Amino acid sequence: MVSKRIQKALLGNSAIRAMFVEGKAMAEKYGAENVYDFSLGNPATPAPAALNDSIRDLLDEADKKGAAGSLELHGYMENAGYKDVRETIAANLNKRFGTAFDDHNIVMTVGAAGGLNIIFKTVLDPGDEVIVFAPFFGEYRQYAANFDSEIVTVNPDLKTFLPDLNDFEAKITEKTKALIVNTPNNPTGVIYKPETMEAIASILEKKQKEFGHDIYLVSDEPYRELVYDGNKEDFLTKYYKNTIVGYSFSKSLSLPGERIGYVVVPNEASDAEELIRGIEISNRTLGFVNAPSLIQKAVARCLDEKTDVSFYDENRTMLYDGLTELGFTCIKPEGAFYLWVKSPVDNEEEFVEEGKKLHLLMVKGSAFGCGGFVRLAYCVSHETVKNSLPAFEKLAQVYGLK
Amino acid sequence: MVSKRIQKALLGNSAIRAMFVEGKAMAEKYGAENVYDFSLGNPATPAPAALNDSIRDLLDEADKKGAAGSLELHGYMENAGYKDVRETIAANLNKRFGTAFDDHNIVMTVGAAGGLNIIFKTVLDPGDEVIVFAPFFGEYRQYAANFDSEIVTVNPDLKTFLPDLNDFEAKITEKTKALIVNTPNNPTGVIYKPETMEAIASILEKKQKEFGHDIYLVSDEPYRELVYDGNKEDFLTKYYKNTIVGYSFSKSLSLPGERIGYVVVPNEASDAEELIRGIEISNRTLGFVNAPSLIQKAVARCLDEKTDVSFYDENRTMLYDGLTELGFTCIKPEGAFYLWVKSPVDNEEEFVEEGKKLHLLMVKGSAFGCGGFVRLAYCVSHETVKNSLPAFEKLAQVYGLK
Repeated sequence: MVSKRIQKALLGNSAIRAMFVEGKAMAEKYGAENVYDFSLGNPATPAPAALNDSIRDLLDEADKKGAAGSLELHGYMENAGYKDVRETIAANLNKRFGTAFDDHNIVMTVGAAGGLNIIFKTVLDPGDEVIVFAPFFGEYRQYAANFDSEIVTVNPDLKTFLPDLNDFEAKITEKTKALIVNTPNNPTGVIYKPETMEAIASILEKKQKEFGHDIYLVSDEPYRELVYDGNKEDFLTKYYKNTIVGYSFSKSLSLPGERIGYVVVPNEASDAEELIRGIEISNRTLGFVNAPSLIQKAVARCLDEKTDVSFYDENRTMLYDGLTELGFTCIKPEGAFYLWVKSPVDNEEEFVEEGKKLHLLMVKGSAFGCGGFVRLAYCVSHETVKNSLPAFEKLAQVYGLK
Repeated sequence: MVSKRIQKALLGNSAIRAMFVEGKAMAEKYGAENVYDFSLGNPATPAPAALNDSIRDLLDEADKKGAAGSLELHGYMENAGYKDVRETIAANLNKRFGTAFDDHNIVMTVGAAGGLNIIFKTVLDPGDEVIVFAPFFGEYRQYAANFDSEIVTVNPDLKTFLPDLNDFEAKITEKTKALIVNTPNNPTGVIYKPETMEAIASILEKKQKEFGHDIYLVSDEPYRELVYDGNKEDFLTKYYKNTIVGYSFSKSLSLPGERIGYVVVPNEASDAEELIRGIEISNRTLGFVNAPSLIQKAVARCLDEKTDVSFYDENRTMLYDGLTELGFTCIKPEGAFYLWVKSPVDNEEEFVEEGKKLHLLMVKGSAFGCGGFVRLAYCVSHETVKNSLPAFEKLAQVYGLK
């Protein structure tokens, strides 16, 4: 007899994960080369060679030290993570973004998903509201629900897919405790430029004063390094004091299975010391305890490494140009590895089903709180993109697009 | 402004972790060799050499396969973990314990702490009660509270430190959804023999019928392999159908920092398929997503490996004999790496403070829901145990024990 929460979850499980499983089944049936699976945000470029080499070095160095080396490499450390790892990450952020962090501002986490959950556990009381900008990564809803909080959705500008800031201002209430910002964005690929961030910050400042309590900007940053067309990597703590960052190495180093990331709490956040200690405690009491040890030390040696962004850029151009040419309306991605495509019919689930008939796997926009669109994850091989275009052409014909 | 839950947690943080930090500070001040830190259950024996070798092999095999190898080794897999890893673990359990699991009975987890949390998320509704046998690992209280449930404590028999089964039966109510069993036990080192497990199972069966709903036995098994004096490793699913196992490799392979373990749901549990799917969903939605990928594959190659149990056994004998000789009353540990010692004064916090003056770090029993006792974690070097005995002698003199 499972809990009521899980009974409900069993009925409406992740659309993305369901598609992932369906895609595997189709690949077995028709051959992987005949299925164009754009469903899952699973990196398609290998980790930089430096990652495996760093792991090897760490093992060799530990073995040389004998028992002490093994205990240090695979043993418990502070719940916040190894001090030297946190120092290295702080110094790297300071070098790249002109910040002034030290090790105590950093808590190593089990990926960004683990990071967001321990942030939420630390700041949310039951009944609090978390604002998200639609379309958004659907798991945010679960993460807020884990702490008896609800998400409140802000509408997008349907031309730019930036948030409608009037709607944002109107949706902030006495109960608002946090806003999640995800730039470069999943699922649209849109980047929030400095003017957007400044406008968001100014609304938050005003509302903090109006309601007399803190509202945290929680920055979910797995795609920070995946930017195109000369766009710059950005770090959001400079726009707004009450910013808490949740970062993941999953995409930048192509190791999503390893579950490694970190949280940054800047000193200028209100009650920064309590926040940091609360996040450390939450890391322990939610059952993460600490980020995996060996991989903590390995990523600390690869902070200036990056997976091959040009690989995704090539897919981006091929898919965006190809689909636009076929008559589809697409938002041009500036970062991440997703293409956000308008469904030719209002009910995009119908469009998704038509796509499946042609072995095209897309995820419905309603999974991101924004119906009428679909998401294509172009973290696939160049061949998959190239070979999918004739199928998309047939799909365009079904809807008389050209 | 942190949440009310965290405000409370900040006031009463983990006694064990606080002692860990205090121990480090004392070691810096007085020299590590002059501090006898028995506070933390951090393994003292290195991981078997096969572990690092398996990691090296996995890296070499992946590098040979190029990009696909890296994506397979460090990428996403099903939320339950790699299928081949789960198959290997199922086969290994079947070989050792005569069970009949396959891959679908196993969900790989971020340690046992992650495992217990996803089990609880799957079975607990707000207001449910979870029974624990005192003394118990204090974090169980937090894990239940994460899902708005409370623990209900059953008294021990103060001679054997087995649970008082009359008290157990009396404490089961309409609200009871689960019982946690932890054998070999932290903090007492006691093992629940078959007759105890059969008696517990029989009470659970009776109460399930009486209340007309499932009561799960959640077996927390990080110490399964750490048994002494010819005691046998046991696997609890054979005693009671509604048993869910949470295992960790932290102690058996000495890699607590890596956060790797698994959950087992046997087919004979009620609604087994829903339980398994619920646990997979909880793994994702609580933010674990999946157990760390590389280390999943590494432990699957080390299932017949074990850290050096004789090392702990030597400490156990030296500390138990030494303290008993000095007039302390100790429970003789049959497993795990803890010694449970009666405080010579009712208020064991006073005893802990006296110990600190002699650089002896012990954890108060009230941290385990059982005042009047202290826990000594003897996962330390032989030298630490040996050199601590003169300090314990002084401590015995303070209380006129001999």
